[in-house]
Amino acid sequence: MNRYLKIDPWRIVEETFDPGKNRISESLFSLGNGRMGQRGNFEEQYSGDTLRGTYIGGVYYPDKTKVGWWKVGYPEYYAKVLNAPYWIGLNIDFNGKPLDLASCKILGFNRILNMKEGYLERSFRVEIDGAGIIEAEVRRFISISDTEVGAVRYSLIPVNFSGTLTVSAYLDGDVKNEDANYNEKFWEEAGMHIKESRAILISKTKKLDYQVSTGMEMKIFRNGIETELHCLTEKRKKYAACKASVLFNQDDQITIYKYAAILSSLNHPADQLMKNTHQVLDNAVGKGFDRLMADQADAWSEKWKKSDIVISGDDAAQQGIRFNIFQLNQTYTGEDERLNIGPKGFTGEKYGGSTYWDTEAFCLPFYLCSADQKVARALLMYRYKHLSKAIENAEKLGFTNGAALYPMVTMNGEECHNEWEITFEEIHRNGAIAYAIFNYVRHSDDRGYLADYGLEVLIAISRFWSQRTSWSEIKKQFVILGVTGPNEYENNVNNNWYTNRFAGWTLKYTIEVMNFVRDNYPEKHKLVLKKLKFKESEIKRWEQIIHHMYFPYDEQLGLFLQQEGYMDKEQKLVSELDSRERPLNQKWSWDRILRSCFIKQADVLQGMYFFEDDFDDEVLAKHFSFYESRTVHESSLSACIHSVMASRIGEQQKAYELYLRTARLDLDDYNNEADQGCHITSMAGTWLAIVEGFGGKRIKNGKLSFNPAIPEKWTSYSFKIHFRGVLLDINVTRDEVKIKNNADKAVHVILYGEEYSVNGKQELILVTAPD
Amino acid sequence: MNRYLKIDPWRIVEETFDPGKNRISESLFSLGNGRMGQRGNFEEQYSGDTLRGTYIGGVYYPDKTKVGWWKVGYPEYYAKVLNAPYWIGLNIDFNGKPLDLASCKILGFNRILNMKEGYLERSFRVEIDGAGIIEAEVRRFISISDTEVGAVRYSLIPVNFSGTLTVSAYLDGDVKNEDANYNEKFWEEAGMHIKESRAILISKTKKLDYQVSTGMEMKIFRNGIETELHCLTEKRKKYAACKASVLFNQDDQITIYKYAAILSSLNHPADQLMKNTHQVLDNAVGKGFDRLMADQADAWSEKWKKSDIVISGDDAAQQGIRFNIFQLNQTYTGEDERLNIGPKGFTGEKYGGSTYWDTEAFCLPFYLCSADQKVARALLMYRYKHLSKAIENAEKLGFTNGAALYPMVTMNGEECHNEWEITFEEIHRNGAIAYAIFNYVRHSDDRGYLADYGLEVLIAISRFWSQRTSWSEIKKQFVILGVTGPNEYENNVNNNWYTNRFAGWTLKYTIEVMNFVRDNYPEKHKLVLKKLKFKESEIKRWEQIIHHMYFPYDEQLGLFLQQEGYMDKEQKLVSELDSRERPLNQKWSWDRILRSCFIKQADVLQGMYFFEDDFDDEVLAKHFSFYESRTVHESSLSACIHSVMASRIGEQQKAYELYLRTARLDLDDYNNEADQGCHITSMAGTWLAIVEGFGGKRIKNGKLSFNPAIPEKWTSYSFKIHFRGVLLDINVTRDEVKIKNNADKAVHVILYGEEYSVNGKQELILVTAPD
Repeated sequence: MNRYLKIDPWRIVEETFDPGKNRISESLFSLGNGRMGQRGNFEEQYSGDTLRGTYIGGVYYPDKTKVGWWKVGYPEYYAKVLNAPYWIGLNIDFNGKPLDLASCKILGFNRILNMKEGYLERSFRVEIDGAGIIEAEVRRFISISDTEVGAVRYSLIPVNFSGTLTVSAYLDGDVKNEDANYNEKFWEEAGMHIKESRAILISKTKKLDYQVSTGMEMKIFRNGIETELHCLTEKRKKYAACKASVLFNQDDQITIYKYAAILSSLNHPADQLMKNTHQVLDNAVGKGFDRLMADQADAWSEKWKKSDIVISGDDAAQQGIRFNIFQLNQTYTGEDERLNIGPKGFTGEKYGGSTYWDTEAFCLPFYLCSADQKVARALLMYRYKHLSKAIENAEKLGFTNGAALYPMVTMNGEECHNEWEITFEEIHRNGAIAYAIFNYVRHSDDRGYLADYGLEVLIAISRFWSQRTSWSEIKKQFVILGVTGPNEYENNVNNNWYTNRFAGWTLKYTIEVMNFVRDNYPEKHKLVLKKLKFKESEIKRWEQIIHHMYFPYDEQLGLFLQQEGYMDKEQKLVSELDSRERPLNQKWSWDRILRSCFIKQADVLQGMYFFEDDFDDEVLAKHFSFYESRTVHESSLSACIHSVMASRIGEQQKAYELYLRTARLDLDDYNNEADQGCHITSMAGTWLAIVEGFGGKRIKNGKLSFNPAIPEKWTSYSFKIHFRGVLLDINVTRDEVKIKNNADKAVHVILYGEEYSVNGKQELILVTAPD
Repeated sequence: MNRYLKIDPWRIVEETFDPGKNRISESLFSLGNGRMGQRGNFEEQYSGDTLRGTYIGGVYYPDKTKVGWWKVGYPEYYAKVLNAPYWIGLNIDFNGKPLDLASCKILGFNRILNMKEGYLERSFRVEIDGAGIIEAEVRRFISISDTEVGAVRYSLIPVNFSGTLTVSAYLDGDVKNEDANYNEKFWEEAGMHIKESRAILISKTKKLDYQVSTGMEMKIFRNGIETELHCLTEKRKKYAACKASVLFNQDDQITIYKYAAILSSLNHPADQLMKNTHQVLDNAVGKGFDRLMADQADAWSEKWKKSDIVISGDDAAQQGIRFNIFQLNQTYTGEDERLNIGPKGFTGEKYGGSTYWDTEAFCLPFYLCSADQKVARALLMYRYKHLSKAIENAEKLGFTNGAALYPMVTMNGEECHNEWEITFEEIHRNGAIAYAIFNYVRHSDDRGYLADYGLEVLIAISRFWSQRTSWSEIKKQFVILGVTGPNEYENNVNNNWYTNRFAGWTLKYTIEVMNFVRDNYPEKHKLVLKKLKFKESEIKRWEQIIHHMYFPYDEQLGLFLQQEGYMDKEQKLVSELDSRERPLNQKWSWDRILRSCFIKQADVLQGMYFFEDDFDDEVLAKHFSFYESRTVHESSLSACIHSVMASRIGEQQKAYELYLRTARLDLDDYNNEADQGCHITSMAGTWLAIVEGFGGKRIKNGKLSFNPAIPEKWTSYSFKIHFRGVLLDINVTRDEVKIKNNADKAVHVILYGEEYSVNGKQELILVTAPD
C-alpha cells in the first residue's frame, strides 16, 4: 500500500508534488466523459517524467500481430487505443523563463479531483528562477453535457515581480503511444486552421482513416478584464499554436481560458469536421467557462443522484467507493452503442482500451442499478451488433452452423489478442455474455429484448457450446476439453467446472428463452429461427448435454473441483507462501504457477456467485473456505467476488478485509501499477462488494431482495438501486434498515427474506438492533 | 511429393533449370564441412529468386526476445545463426553483357551434387543476349580436410563469339538474414585488405564481437595457360572485389579459380585473423584446385568407408539414404566440441542453427556407429560443458540445489526459445540427454566417461526430476504435472507417460552409475559428490519416486496412455480425416488440435523405442497399432521411429511405408518446405529406420545384436557399424546375412537371437532363405 493522498469524502487530494509519483497521480486525476478522456497531465510545459494521454473512445489502430509461431485462427491485426492529439497544452513563460514544475522551486502544491462536480483543480506557488514567485490556480474539465467540449481556466498571480507573460496555447497531433513499436507514429495531419487565437487541427490515423478534429480558442483576462490578444501563430507539421504576450504588474491576476472542441469522424462526416469544430467552439466560447462548468456540475449532480453510495464512519472507504463510481461514470455513459469499457478506461493505454469479459461479468450490474435502463441496454447492444463477427471468429476456429465465439479482447467485434491459451481457450467469456442477457432482463423486465436481440445471441452461443462439448466414452458424459477458466493461472485444462457450468446453463436458458419467445412473440420466434436456419434436432443435443454434463467433483472432500485433476496438485495455502514470493507472476516461472494449486482469481467461486441459488449455505461456505485459502487475488477482479461471497455466507470480517483490497486498489496503489492507469472494471466489483455483498442485494422471483449487514467500522451506509423504473435508496445503520421508494408507484421488496410493499414516496424502516 | 530430380545412386542431379524450384535446389545442393556451410547458390550474378546462405558454425547473434506477455524465466535474448559474408561470388560479363541465368536463354543446364567426392558441379549452355552462346562448367567444394578453405573452378567457353570477358570476384559482408527484423543488419566491417587479385574482408558481428575473416584469391587461365591479371580493385563498405578482363576468341576455354579462406575468431585471436587468412590462402593457392579437390575426394572416401549404406534394387532409396548420410557428415564432424547439429544444418536459416533434443534423441546413434568414437563423445561433451548454464536455467525456473534443465533450444547453453509450453514444459529433453550418456557408454564401453563427466550431468538432471515430481495425495503416487511431451500437439498435460518414464529411468540409471563410479573410481566418486554437495538423502527420495511413479494406464484397453485423460478425447483415426484438413497445423486452430486425439509425432512409442526391452512383443504391437493410427506424422522426426517400431513388431510393409516418408523427405519435398533448408536431424532418423529397423541392430548385454529383414523391393542392403573399435559390414540379401569383421580381433555378435563369434577379418554368413 502506498497511500500519499489525503482522505476526503468527495475529493482526491494531493498536497505535495512528488515527481516520482507523477504518473500515478496522472492516472488517478484522469477526466473523462464516456466519449473521451484525458490523464491528469499538466497544461504547462513539464520536463519531468510524465505519461501524456488523451484518448477518444472508438478511435483505434490495427497493429500487426507478431508472434513466435503463428497458429491458425490468430487475428492478423490487433486493435489498440491511440493516444490522440493533445489539447490541454499551454506553454507559459514569465519574462522568458518557463513555468515548469520540474525546474521551479515549489513553494506549495495541490492537485484535487472534485468528484462531486467533475473537474480537476490544481493550485501551486512556485519560484521561477530568474523571474519570481507566482501563484497559480488551474481548473479543467471535460464536459459530460457538451460531450465534445473540454475547457481549461488557468489563473496566475505574479506575487513579487512585474514583466511579460507569454503563453502559447497549442494543439499537438504529433503524439504516439508509449508502447509503440520502434517509436512508430500513428497520426497524419489531415487539415489545419489557425488564425488569431483559434486553431483547429485535423488528424488522421495512418490506418482505418479515423479523423479527429481538435480545436481550441484562447482568451486572456487581466484582473477580470479581457485583454485584446495579438496572437502570433505557429504552424508545424501536426502542430498548431497561438502565442500571446501580456504585460503584467506584481499582483495582477492573469487568467487564461482555453476552450477545446474534440470531434471525430465517428460522429461527423470527415468533410464537415472543420466546419462543425468551429461551431462547437463558437458554442463553447459563447457559453463561457462558468456556464459550461455549471452545466458540468449539474450533470454530475444528476449522476450522483442515481449512483452515489454514502458511508459514514469510514472516510477512506467513502472516498474509495466515490472514486470508483466517479471513474465508472466517466468511462461509460451508454450514449454510444459502439463504445464499451476498457479495463483502464481513459486513464492509460495498457490493455489497448479494448473490451474484455469484464464488461458483462463485473460492470453490467453497476450500470443496471445506477443509471437509466438504456445504459445497460447499450452494453448488450454492443455485443448484439458484433454477433456476425463473433460467428466469423468461431468459423476461423473450425466451428460451423452459426456458432459464435465472442472475442476475448476486442474493439470492433474482431478478436485482437494472440495467446492461444487465452484467445482460443478462455471461452468462458461466451457464458458471461449470455448471462448478461439474463441479468439485464431479470433486472429490467425488458422481455422484448429477448425477442428482438437476445434470442439470436443465445442461440449462436449455445451452438458454440454444443459443438465445443464432446462425448467422453469412458465417462459416458459430455466434457469440455482444453480450456482456460477465469483463473488464468491454469491453462488448457479439461472440464473447468466454471466453463462446464456455464455451457450447461446457457443451453438451458436458451431453450427457456426460445420457448418464451415462441409463446409470447410467435412471429419474432419464426423469423429468428428462419434467419438462423435453426433445426429442432439442435435442441435434442442441447438437452443431452444439459443432462449429461460432467462436473469434476471430489467425493471425499464433497467439493466441486476447479478442473479435472486439481487434487493431484500439492495442496498448499496462500498463508503458507513466503511473502517474498509474491506476486507469483513476478516471481515464479509460468510452469510453476500452472502446476501449483494457487488461484489467480475466483473460478469455482465466480461460478457460485453467478448461480448462487443452486447451492445451499453449507456448500457455499465449504467451497469458499477451500478456494479462498488458495487464491492469491493477483487479478484486480478477484477480491470483490470473494467479498460478495463472504458476505453471503456471513463471514463479515473476511468480507470487509476483501472489500478493502478492492476499494482503494488504485488510490493506495496496492499493486504498484497505478502509474499505468486505473483498474476501471474492477471498480465495478467494489460496487458489487457493497451492494450485493454488504447490502445483500439480489433479485428473487422478479423482486428486489436485500439482506444487509454493516461492517463494524461503519456507522451507516446507503446505496441506490434503479429497478424497473423505480429508484430506491437503501440506508443501513447499526440499528435499522431504511428503504425509500422515490417513485410514485408501490414496489415489493424482500428484506431479510420477508416481503414488504413500499408505497410510492414512502420509506420502509426495519429496526434491526437487538433490544 | 514433388520429385523433379533424377534418381542416381551417388549424385543429386537437376537436369533443367526451373527458377520456381531454385530455392529448393539451393537447399538440397548445400555444401558443408562441419565448420561451415554454403547453400547451392550460383557464383555468378542471378537476378531471380534466391536465398543466399553462408553459415559458420558457432557464429550467432543474440536477438532480443519479443513476446506479448512476458513470463518469468524467459531468456532475454535468443540466439540465431547469422548469414555470414558471401565468398563464392563472381560477377561475369561477356562484352559488357552479364551472365545471369534469370535473363539468359538457357540451352542446357545441369546441377549435380557429387556425394561420393563432396563437390557441387554445374554445367550449362546459355545464350547471352547481345553477346553469344557460352558453355560453362563450374565446380565448387568446401574442404573437409582443409576446413577453412573453399574453392570454385569456373570454366567458360564462348562458342560463337569473341571479345572481352570481365570477371569481378568479390567478398560481400553486407548480408542479412531473411527473417531479420526490419531489414536489420548484423555485420560491421572490421578490416580489409585488397591488392591485385587478393582480397580479405574482416567482418564483425554487431553483438558478441565475433569476427569472421573471408579471403579470396583469383586466378584465370586461358586454354590451360595462366594469364597475368591486371586487377582493378573495388572497395566499398563491407565489400571488396577484384576485377579482371580477359580477351578471348571463339572456343577459347577460360577458367577462373577462386580460392577462399574462411576463418573466425572462434579459432584465431582477432588480431591475427588477417595474417592467418593470408597464410591459409597462400597454402590453398599453393596446393592448387586439383590437389585440394583430390584431398577432398580422399577425405570423403574415408567418410563413406565408415558410414555408407548400399541398397540394391531400389535406386530411389539408395539415393535417399546416401543423401541423408552425406548431409549428416557435412553437418557434424565432431572436431569442435563447441558445435552441434542444427535441425537445418548449414542448409537454411530456419530454427536459427540451434541445438534441439534432436541431437541426443535422433542423431547420436548415427555418429556412434558411423564415425570414430570421439565424434559421438564430442556431442556429449557439448552438453557437459553447458552443465552450469543448464543449472542456471533451472534456477531461473525456481529449481535449487544444482538441478539442471537443459535448454530446449540453444547455441551456447542458454535457453533461446520463448513459448512457455515448449521452453518451460517440454522438459523431456532432459531425459534424452541422460539417455545419450547411457547410449554412448553401452556402445563405446567408455566407462571412464561416467566418472569424468557423465555422473555430474546425471546427478544434476536427476535433481531436476526429483524436484519437478510431486506427490499426489489422492493417487498416493508421484506425478509430473504440466508438461509438453514429445507430441507437441498436446500442451500442459499431466503425467505424460514418456516424461514420467524418463524421469524414473534417469533416477534409476543415475543411482546405478553412482554405484558403478563409487566401486570403480572411488576417488572420482568422492570428488564429484563433494563438488555437487550431494547428500545421501537425495537418493532416498529418488528411490521413492522410482518405486511410486504414476503411469497413466487404461485397464480396459490394456494400454499406457500418452497422458492422463487421453481417453476422454473423441477417439478418431487418421484414416478418418479428410485429406483437405491436412496438415492439421495449417488447417486447424491450436485449441482444436490440442483437444483432438491426433498425435504430431511418436510419444508413447518414442518411449517404447528407448525402453524396448521392458515390453514384450504383444505390448509393443498393441501400442503401435493404437498410437500409429492416431499419428499424423507432422513432425519430420516421427515416421522414422514408427518405422523402427514397425520393424520390431514384424510389420514389414508398414515399416517400409514409413521409411519412404522419411528417406526422401527433402529430395521429394514431401512437406513443401525444402526451400527453407533440409531436415538434417530427421535424416539421422532415416538411418535408424534402416539400421535399427530393417537391420534390427541392438546392443544386448554389451554385444551387438541384429535381426535383419529386407524390404520386398530390395535385393540387398548393407550397412556399417563401428562398435568398440571394430568396424563391421552387415550385408543382407533375400537369402543370407553376412557380417564381416574388419578388425583384427574377434567380436561376438548376436544374430536372430543366436550368439556367434566372428574372428578378425572374417565373415559370418547365415543363410536365411527357406529351402
